[in-house]
Amino acid sequence: MNSKLKDIKKIIVTKPLKLDCGKTINNFPLAYETYGKLNKNKDNAILVFHALTGDQFVSETNPITNKEGWWVTAVGPGKAIDTNKYFVICANVIGGCMGSLGPKDINSETKQPYGLDFPVITIRDMIRAQESLLDHLEIKKLLCATGGSMGGMQLLQFCSTFPDKAFSAIPIACSSSHSAQNIALNELARQAIMADPVWDKGKYFLKNVQPKNGLAVARMVGHISYLSEKGMQEKFGRKLQEKADYEFSFNADFQVESYLRHQGYAFVERFDANSILYITRAMDYFDLAKQFKGGLVEAFKGQKTKYLIISFSSDWLYTTKENKDIVIALNASGADVSYSEIITDKGHDSFLLEVPDFLKTLKSFIDSMHEKFKNEKRI
Amino acid sequence: MNSKLKDIKKIIVTKPLKLDCGKTINNFPLAYETYGKLNKNKDNAILVFHALTGDQFVSETNPITNKEGWWVTAVGPGKAIDTNKYFVICANVIGGCMGSLGPKDINSETKQPYGLDFPVITIRDMIRAQESLLDHLEIKKLLCATGGSMGGMQLLQFCSTFPDKAFSAIPIACSSSHSAQNIALNELARQAIMADPVWDKGKYFLKNVQPKNGLAVARMVGHISYLSEKGMQEKFGRKLQEKADYEFSFNADFQVESYLRHQGYAFVERFDANSILYITRAMDYFDLAKQFKGGLVEAFKGQKTKYLIISFSSDWLYTTKENKDIVIALNASGADVSYSEIITDKGHDSFLLEVPDFLKTLKSFIDSMHEKFKNEKRI
Repeated sequence: MNSKLKDIKKIIVTKPLKLDCGKTINNFPLAYETYGKLNKNKDNAILVFHALTGDQFVSETNPITNKEGWWVTAVGPGKAIDTNKYFVICANVIGGCMGSLGPKDINSETKQPYGLDFPVITIRDMIRAQESLLDHLEIKKLLCATGGSMGGMQLLQFCSTFPDKAFSAIPIACSSSHSAQNIALNELARQAIMADPVWDKGKYFLKNVQPKNGLAVARMVGHISYLSEKGMQEKFGRKLQEKADYEFSFNADFQVESYLRHQGYAFVERFDANSILYITRAMDYFDLAKQFKGGLVEAFKGQKTKYLIISFSSDWLYTTKENKDIVIALNASGADVSYSEIITDKGHDSFLLEVPDFLKTLKSFIDSMHEKFKNEKRI
Repeated sequence: MNSKLKDIKKIIVTKPLKLDCGKTINNFPLAYETYGKLNKNKDNAILVFHALTGDQFVSETNPITNKEGWWVTAVGPGKAIDTNKYFVICANVIGGCMGSLGPKDINSETKQPYGLDFPVITIRDMIRAQESLLDHLEIKKLLCATGGSMGGMQLLQFCSTFPDKAFSAIPIACSSSHSAQNIALNELARQAIMADPVWDKGKYFLKNVQPKNGLAVARMVGHISYLSEKGMQEKFGRKLQEKADYEFSFNADFQVESYLRHQGYAFVERFDANSILYITRAMDYFDLAKQFKGGLVEAFKGQKTKYLIISFSSDWLYTTKENKDIVIALNASGADVSYSEIITDKGHDSFLLEVPDFLKTLKSFIDSMHEKFKNEKRI
């Protein structure tokens, strides 16, 4: 897998980036992918921010995993985000493991992979790193920026830090700060990784191994939280896994057990355990209101970006209430904001799935923004 | 700790118990505790069934852990279940680790602790073992039987298996079968334990160690599911643990992280990892409707027991809906049933906490049942 990573698109960010923790990184790689073509007027660029375990391979086939891109439901030719019309960009976050600087990269000081010597990063650090990519692509203003889950958090931060970079923004199923329950779920995932002796205080790379068991358990936490109780009941209920009755053992008797084990152990093939620690930490530290005296309303003040906030009725990880709180703050700040709650049983995962109401909402907003943006550019 | 276990109350169940898995156990210990005194008419006995990590020490001080009994909020002199009036009995479930036969006991065939040679047990096995205790105490009919969470599941099973043993029953915050989400959460706990190499396929006892890391992570899963999202937000929010700002590390920056770590690692001092595997499995296998052709209504048919079902509005582990489904089936079976939903933010944990509406409801039902039971006995 590592050898293939050499062939993917990346830029080297030469400009020093002072991180929120106080340390500075420079000359670091930022991996990215694009779909579609940037038009002459540069009015069709859409930046996508990925979620915790996502990467830059939004559409088509991920060349590293040989699986479909994580957002093929929404991005591609003729899709809601139509790559026949739009130029879609996505970068791997720093701290990740798909080509951008992360804890598995070589620390030039020690000539060893960073491991826990990697600086603790924030959502703001992530989006500041990504600004360099827009410079590289010579895009001054995006038609739209969007992202679900942690992608939505990056987007809120991006619009606050760079208020002139996005004509429109669609934060999906996210929050302006992590709730206690979300911090707890992330801590559970971290504890599962750190409990694995193979993790070895993050130094597992010295033995060329991965803390697979801990990482798999961490991934199972995620998969439980991404589905709604009702959705899980409809999908799995008490159905048994290819057997007529209970086995009276600790094998996977129930389909839901089999599903979790499969998801957990498939994940370790494509993700780095330390990256999970760093990225979940960034999510937990995210608190947009904390950065501005006067709180969340202040964070949005003066922005001209046209927002569409989308939440899913059965999402218990980033609830409708948390998304509405963003809408309320945007309204109070005088921003241009629309809001749509999509009614579905599919939980937080909805933004990745074929949920027609969601995809229609996404498409019509982006297409109408494109018309407005073209007009604005004409004037 | 083990040495103290020798001094606790227990009976040896000599009658062979054929388990649901097909195996038979006999001459096995069943540990129990009682509070208050059985009166001459034997009309004041209340049987309590404990939850996953509970034990027989309901009230006063647990002599093994030196901590308060797990239900001191409800059971004791002058409490809702008043031990000045009532004789309260609680037995440790088989599969547990507080004196009743469990996986850490010696297997007479191998002269080694059972470990995974212990038979996989069910909720029905648990309550059939406990019937022997009522014989031993010479109690033909209980005034009341009650229990929350897995205790409520045992209670539903007890009333179906022994329809003449309880005059009244109060199942609290439970379900007649585990939902997919609950199976998933239990599987997560089991996977965390089994991922710990110290667990060693359940044979850790050979080295006189415990898979502490895995067991602690398993316990953290529980603690997240026992609180509501809102309750957790009110209790912890984003409060930091004795520090002014983020530490930019993986230490416990947030109070909720510190809480989970503390709960996880305190738990390993009092509980056996294999017991968690066995008891969670019993919970997942529980499906009362499956035992009766005609389903849940049939399970309750012909019972004269007077039921009070209690649920908590913010409990997402055993939701109000699941509790109401029991009420609906009881009604359809012609049973005598009352129902109370307690409005609280305290989540599933509510049954263990000072929730006045809940404790008042419990008290008034039991006291009124006592009057009725005395009258019935008089006739």
